[in-house]
Amino acid sequence: MTWIRDALVVGANRGLGLELTRQLRGRGARVFATARVPSEANALAATGAEVVALDVEDEASIARAVAGVREATSTLDLVLHVAGLLHDGELQPEKKLDDVAPEHLARSFRVNATGPLLVAKHVHPLLRHERKAVLATLSARVGSIGDNRLGGWYGYRASKAAQNMVVRTVAVELARKAKNAIVMALHPGTVDTGLSAPFQRNVPPGKLFEVERAARQLLAIVDRADASYHGTFRAWDDTEIPW
Amino acid sequence: MTWIRDALVVGANRGLGLELTRQLRGRGARVFATARVPSEANALAATGAEVVALDVEDEASIARAVAGVREATSTLDLVLHVAGLLHDGELQPEKKLDDVAPEHLARSFRVNATGPLLVAKHVHPLLRHERKAVLATLSARVGSIGDNRLGGWYGYRASKAAQNMVVRTVAVELARKAKNAIVMALHPGTVDTGLSAPFQRNVPPGKLFEVERAARQLLAIVDRADASYHGTFRAWDDTEIPW
Repeated sequence: MTWIRDALVVGANRGLGLELTRQLRGRGARVFATARVPSEANALAATGAEVVALDVEDEASIARAVAGVREATSTLDLVLHVAGLLHDGELQPEKKLDDVAPEHLARSFRVNATGPLLVAKHVHPLLRHERKAVLATLSARVGSIGDNRLGGWYGYRASKAAQNMVVRTVAVELARKAKNAIVMALHPGTVDTGLSAPFQRNVPPGKLFEVERAARQLLAIVDRADASYHGTFRAWDDTEIPW
Repeated sequence: MTWIRDALVVGANRGLGLELTRQLRGRGARVFATARVPSEANALAATGAEVVALDVEDEASIARAVAGVREATSTLDLVLHVAGLLHDGELQPEKKLDDVAPEHLARSFRVNATGPLLVAKHVHPLLRHERKAVLATLSARVGSIGDNRLGGWYGYRASKAAQNMVVRTVAVELARKAKNAIVMALHPGTVDTGLSAPFQRNVPPGKLFEVERAARQLLAIVDRADASYHGTFRAWDDTEIPW
């Protein structure tokens, strides 16, 4: 029924990652789904996914998680990197230069850019096989440098631009090492989750997606993806976004 | 003789920053030139610049440096951000994913992306005046996501993409706050300095610039820059580079 036999969803404990896991399970895939604290991931466990401990800020935990996956399977058909950081307590999107704080910048880079890079570092051998393999990282349109007309959100924008470069650079390397791998960055649109909750006021009518719809739209792109998608940055409606 | 009365060069102790300072001094500008350890900046002091202590990894030192400049002048015509990191001891450009180390990523982001952002945060009030004001940050073509065909150099590429986003976002904010400011990212080409020294083998003939020439080319762009240059990413030959 689905070409996806084994999938890994990084950052699956809530929001879009949880829903993507649920839909993949509904299609009959085996899903390794990561959470920082598996003992608190009850909704995730209820999907039937195999819950794996992983903190994208801790490379050792990434290495352990991937080693655990490798005990169960030597290949993955799909890796979805969903984990990302827009706001957390004192860390809030900057309205202006005066709001910029280096410790918040550092954390945004760690989660949004270095995290996907470290996951790619450890997981790429599992994408080297004869079937289609997709490594899709959730990015955001505000990470487009060319499309930036509003300004602000320094840490999120800069870390998402860095993440896009990571995706593109991983794509170049895997074109040599995992010939069937399709590596891309995806913009899910604004999704009605905790990530966007404080910022939904300015979303045009009809453009705030329920998670069910957002996850479905992303999986449709993943299903459709072929070699021409490799190394690209695409929105929920499958249009390309400028870097 | 020159429209540049007061300039600030961040990262002026050697290489391109030192030569830019020298040429600006030769044109009669007053130059505030930063070094991490002013007591060791003898060549810089010999240019006649006013040497200022500044470490881009330390926001307090940036604040102190700009406060010192403000005691001497309330306006700057030119800020050149030259400080950047490609290699330093164990930190070397990654050839492949397996070479990626999170602590090196963190430092690259700190120096190459957060550094220029913090300098902009503290210096922007000095760019708010009735004359032309340029804030130019040295970036690199390998920081172009769209132009990335070779891969590798994960930390440098990602931090330079982040820096380009910083430049673009600062440009949006200063369009409102400092109407005469021209904010841009510049690619100097490959310059014969310590930064490029380990990587000069693959540079095509005629494309490895002596620092004197590289600095002259950059100042020519700064001289020529008008409002149409605001928020752009340009190479040494004044062509635009895709983000």
